[in-house]
Amino acid sequence: LFFPVGNPEPRLFAPYSIYKGKAAISVNPILPTFTKMDSGHFRVDRKGCILLTFWPAIGEHKYDWAKKQVFALSATEVGSLISMSSKDSSEFFHDPSMKSSNAGQVRKSLSIKAVPDANGYFINLNVVNNLTKTTDRFVVPVTTAEFVVMKTACSFALPHIMGWHRLTNPQLEEGAKKSSKIDPQLLDLEWDK
Amino acid sequence: LFFPVGNPEPRLFAPYSIYKGKAAISVNPILPTFTKMDSGHFRVDRKGCILLTFWPAIGEHKYDWAKKQVFALSATEVGSLISMSSKDSSEFFHDPSMKSSNAGQVRKSLSIKAVPDANGYFINLNVVNNLTKTTDRFVVPVTTAEFVVMKTACSFALPHIMGWHRLTNPQLEEGAKKSSKIDPQLLDLEWDK
Amino acid sequence: LFFPVGNPEPRLFAPYSIYKGKAAISVNPILPTFTKMDSGHFRVDRKGCILLTFWPAIGEHKYDWAKKQVFALSATEVGSLISMSSKDSSEFFHDPSMKSSNAGQVRKSLSIKAVPDANGYFINLNVVNNLTKTTDRFVVPVTTAEFVVMKTACSFALPHIMGWHRLTNPQLEEGAKKSSKIDPQLLDLEWDK
Amino acid sequence: LFFPVGNPEPRLFAPYSIYKGKAAISVNPILPTFTKMDSGHFRVDRKGCILLTFWPAIGEHKYDWAKKQVFALSATEVGSLISMSSKDSSEFFHDPSMKSSNAGQVRKSLSIKAVPDANGYFINLNVVNNLTKTTDRFVVPVTTAEFVVMKTACSFALPHIMGWHRLTNPQLEEGAKKSSKIDPQLLDLEWDK
Repeated sequence: LFFPVGNPEPRLFAPYSIYKGKAAISVNPILPTFTKMDSGHFRVDRKGCILLTFWPAIGEHKYDWAKKQVFALSATEVGSLISMSSKDSSEFFHDPSMKSSNAGQVRKSLSIKAVPDANGYFINLNVVNNLTKTTDRFVVPVTTAEFVVMKTACSFALPHIMGWHRLTNPQLEEGAKKSSKIDPQLLDLEWDK
Repeated sequence: LFFPVGNPEPRLFAPYSIYKGKAAISVNPILPTFTKMDSGHFRVDRKGCILLTFWPAIGEHKYDWAKKQVFALSATEVGSLISMSSKDSSEFFHDPSMKSSNAGQVRKSLSIKAVPDANGYFINLNVVNNLTKTTDRFVVPVTTAEFVVMKTACSFALPHIMGWHRLTNPQLEEGAKKSSKIDPQLLDLEWDK
Repeated sequence: LFFPVGNPEPRLFAPYSIYKGKAAISVNPILPTFTKMDSGHFRVDRKGCILLTFWPAIGEHKYDWAKKQVFALSATEVGSLISMSSKDSSEFFHDPSMKSSNAGQVRKSLSIKAVPDANGYFINLNVVNNLTKTTDRFVVPVTTAEFVVMKTACSFALPHIMGWHRLTNPQLEEGAKKSSKIDPQLLDLEWDK
Repeated sequence: LFFPVGNPEPRLFAPYSIYKGKAAISVNPILPTFTKMDSGHFRVDRKGCILLTFWPAIGEHKYDWAKKQVFALSATEVGSLISMSSKDSSEFFHDPSMKSSNAGQVRKSLSIKAVPDANGYFINLNVVNNLTKTTDRFVVPVTTAEFVVMKTACSFALPHIMGWHRLTNPQLEEGAKKSSKIDPQLLDLEWDK
């Protein structure tokens, strides 16, 4: 999967990956970063997220990681996902360059639709790039069991991406140093807020 | 947000904040404090809470933190919140000076009402101050997804504000020292029990 | 509350207590103890439990801790409690001296009954002592919010009383030493298996 | 229970065991192992699982551990289990030698069926060995309370068997060393992927 270079701090890659006929999806929590304030206290600097990565199939059991696209779910979007029942659907829109001069160049839409008769869900990602005039489409059908793993793991991760797991950890200093060196390459791939 | 001064122990600020048209709300867990007893054992000294902070909008995307009001949810009140279905409503009443000579001077009421048709909830805080003859009113409409984040994060935090996360932590001594220096300014703003 | 003496290891007391008109109840997790085997590995020695303590009211806001009775919920009994809906009821029977020559001398029964119309639950403990020819009865009505706190906290505690929280903790040695010195006075008060 | 030998790293055995008339079942989480990559980062090497162990009764309160059979639930299979309602049933098929020259020699099938009228579930394991021409069958009826413990404990364990509990743990090095020495004997007993 993705192995960033030039990052002096050891990180752990433990994605939950689902491989299907036309594409694969992996679910990966990204922790927030912390900043030490003049007061000596700490605050969340960059919020965490659940990073969804899609990459296409290029043959039987073969997938092309170079053609991946990512979608970073915020805490509130994770709230939408984990509260979905088997009758619900959700749709999210991101512009990675929002509030910059490049706003509107790339538009991402993620939709999750329950398919009650098929005992599962369809997860779709569309990435429209107005600059390169290209559109990437990914469709990953997931079973109810796979979606329950996504929901359970995201529920577990939610307080962590909010930074609440650190409230009870006395070793703030070490954690803050560590987090401030997190690989920016990864985080800058996609972020909408 | 709030940055208390004069507190020698590092603390972490990781509020979940929701900004809406007329006001903003942030949700922040406050851990309990511990006391060492003569027996060498420890007990919870001051109970933890979930601190809700409201502050008004004073323009587009501008909010006035100086006019904030807080409401501290006890463990049992958190139990009410996390068990709310999309048809329920809850109401809580606090008197920050209860059992003191100032009882009745300030009355706070928090109501949370599901609005099924609007796919969300209304969170209202009213603070009536009989001394200054003023009333502060805050209304924050939250979406179902935002409320799910509040419920999931508060469910995660509940055992922590009760102190149960420390049962498995052998380093009680350090924690107790740490907690006993928690900023009293913050905790004394509002507490009803 | 209860402060055992003569225990060299620091413990933490963080009960969730509910005070009502005729009696009070506190909910307290007791962690398992661990034993080092000849192989160098560890196993759970004495299982953990959720200890429910009842003590009677003897006046307004006055309770007599000396007349307390306890009931220790096993992991499976905790499973019953946390799966109770607002229409269910549960009943548990314990004989603290089961499988000993004193079997049958003391009989304890705990019942939890939902009272849908009253928006809450009745928790009853009856302790019949055939030796002293006495019966102690406790009735504590709890609100839905209080029961949700009990269920959420017990769900959090369940993997801990099973010892599963230690699977990821590398410092087994220290924990095992620590746990083996846990106050036996407390654990021997009531245990049915 | 099972005590592997020759493993220099201390491990903890804390199975949840249910003893019934014809067989017993124990539920035990197995953590993943981690590998340090050339980049200095870590990734999950061998995925974790929930190991179900069945062994037959050979008399009243007597069970024969030597005749045990195991079934290792993957993260997605755990997702199936924890999402089962009291009306559902699940069935899983494993071939421990899948993708090797021995494929098809041993076939395992696990079924979990809710029995609404009996207020519980039937857990069945069938192991057909074409080499030895033998079939082992285990049937363990579990109560709703016992199944709730299994579901709650497996929900707690799910992020751990995925390795997500390590995302917030800075001491990756130590953990990786530790995990890489995990007893292979145990893990090689049954694995389908």
